[in-house]
Amino acid sequence: MRPGGRRQEPIRIMSQHPNPQQRPRVLSGMRPTGKLHLGNYMGALANWVKLQAQYDCYFFIADWHALTTDYADTTKVTDNIKEVLLDYLAAGLDAEKSVIFLQSRVPQHAELALLLGMSTPLGWLERVPSYKEMQENLTSRDLTTYGFLGYPVLMSADILLYQPDFVPVGQDQQAHVELTREIARRFNQFYSLDGREVLPEPKSLLTPSPKLPGTDGRKMSKSYGNTILISDPEPEVRKKLKTMVTDPARIRRTDKGDPDKCPVGDLHKVFSTPETLAKVYDGCRSAGIGCIECKGWAADSLVQVLAPIQERRAAITEPQALEIMNEGSRRAGMRAEQTMTEVREAMKMPLTTVKGA
Amino acid sequence: MRPGGRRQEPIRIMSQHPNPQQRPRVLSGMRPTGKLHLGNYMGALANWVKLQAQYDCYFFIADWHALTTDYADTTKVTDNIKEVLLDYLAAGLDAEKSVIFLQSRVPQHAELALLLGMSTPLGWLERVPSYKEMQENLTSRDLTTYGFLGYPVLMSADILLYQPDFVPVGQDQQAHVELTREIARRFNQFYSLDGREVLPEPKSLLTPSPKLPGTDGRKMSKSYGNTILISDPEPEVRKKLKTMVTDPARIRRTDKGDPDKCPVGDLHKVFSTPETLAKVYDGCRSAGIGCIECKGWAADSLVQVLAPIQERRAAITEPQALEIMNEGSRRAGMRAEQTMTEVREAMKMPLTTVKGA
Repeated sequence: MRPGGRRQEPIRIMSQHPNPQQRPRVLSGMRPTGKLHLGNYMGALANWVKLQAQYDCYFFIADWHALTTDYADTTKVTDNIKEVLLDYLAAGLDAEKSVIFLQSRVPQHAELALLLGMSTPLGWLERVPSYKEMQENLTSRDLTTYGFLGYPVLMSADILLYQPDFVPVGQDQQAHVELTREIARRFNQFYSLDGREVLPEPKSLLTPSPKLPGTDGRKMSKSYGNTILISDPEPEVRKKLKTMVTDPARIRRTDKGDPDKCPVGDLHKVFSTPETLAKVYDGCRSAGIGCIECKGWAADSLVQVLAPIQERRAAITEPQALEIMNEGSRRAGMRAEQTMTEVREAMKMPLTTVKGA
Repeated sequence: MRPGGRRQEPIRIMSQHPNPQQRPRVLSGMRPTGKLHLGNYMGALANWVKLQAQYDCYFFIADWHALTTDYADTTKVTDNIKEVLLDYLAAGLDAEKSVIFLQSRVPQHAELALLLGMSTPLGWLERVPSYKEMQENLTSRDLTTYGFLGYPVLMSADILLYQPDFVPVGQDQQAHVELTREIARRFNQFYSLDGREVLPEPKSLLTPSPKLPGTDGRKMSKSYGNTILISDPEPEVRKKLKTMVTDPARIRRTDKGDPDKCPVGDLHKVFSTPETLAKVYDGCRSAGIGCIECKGWAADSLVQVLAPIQERRAAITEPQALEIMNEGSRRAGMRAEQTMTEVREAMKMPLTTVKGA
């Protein structure tokens, strides 16, 4: 008989997904912070879209992670999930190619986090650089909580649950993958299945993460309020560009500037064509163009990049998007259960050996 | 449509259980430590059996808790689960009256633990008396782990998941229920459902926990190797009694003794009839009987108490017992999902508002 009744039989994902076994698997996710900005897009999403051609892809929305810092006010989580989901799809994540899912729909994330936490030394967590850093920066919240200390354990579970070959990350997140590898290694030291490692250590897949300044010249970040959203309509993009800071040494129109010292120059490098970029360098360095003109060109480039994204977003209804997430969560749950079956067996706590008759 | 596909609809437990709503609910559990001893029986199990007449009862085997200390070697967990289960049933836990289940079969325990951990201050956990104490005592294991620090969070989830009115505990466990109440209170401060508390604070139901010495006179405990098991056959019980320590002041047969200073006297107080107890006091204090005779009477009393337990154990096959646990786990899972539906809704992260169409 089926134990407990609510667990699904592990179904080979092979029958669900075209040739996943031939392609290396990647997994990544984001917290539901609301509408995504150009920094999220260039640092992660744009790379994920490209990965779809070559990898068996799992992309998720980490709603439980939102609680590690925002447990005291969860009123926006559901809306933020919807916005991130729509932006995922708008950016080009494709449910035909990728499994797009919501973390909290796959309770195996909580189960594996619980199990991994059993063998994770506290010292490893206390030494995570972002732990002390965020506690110091987010002074408005009490982050001396069990959940906040444990977020790298949950993150490790998120990753290892899908036995991926790679985790696409930017330079600054490599430490997290390193800790995930350590947590996997420790698990594999204690438990294995006929000598085989159940939670293989995934590798970092270092993806381009270009320097992307916000309108105030600092790194683009929601918490700085300096973002350009990928869903911002053209007039909004142009308006934000107009107030953007420029090379501080170029004070007057007649001063020569340096695009390499200018946040708008950084945007051009990421979003403009080589031709436009050449015009920017020439015009700025010779004082042949003014900053207003240069910002207009940057806005043109941005609008061009954002147009297809916004067209896709306009073409998707919310129910369609949620249906995609539901179906993705169902598929992710089946893949997760496949791993958990191995995990439980390796831990000598399989559901099968204690089932009736 | 059904989100995720794997969650069951919350089914009113009313249809599963006779009049549970009229009776207050209790929940308790034990770690799977293997065959249970008289200390487990008198301190918990015997009380649970009596509670079945008046309460809506949930009794579980806390297999995930075994990992908080024994993560490095899990080879015995499955066998220990079976032994505890058989002892539960042998002692008189009745599947017609109680829901008897296995923690790991109800993954909602992991989900609620994850959610409760988000708002649990680390200081609360570091201050739990048994935290430092066990770290100091169990020096053979590395207990500076995330899972060990968090075991009171998991325990709180175990309890609160069933929204019980009472938790039957001995004097020494009241601190745990107190912490569970604090964790519930904090959750209820942040989240509620139309002003209603979703995780009501359970009360301690103080149950008798008589002084029960092991064969060496110290508290009966598996870790001291001084136990009498409830499954020990009569010859084994008699043999263990024979080597049991007695009143240290009574050295020779002709010395007068004091049953109040004798571990065997303590056993008589718990298990013997008033008549036997009177004979023990008279005979020991007057040196009218010897310790060997007195121990024989104690063994007689024990054997009489254990006989019906062992008869029940002999009458149950392992597949029958596991079938009971499977069915109990199914029912517990439905009850747990009912609570989780409320928890998710209170946290404004219900599965329903992000479901398709």
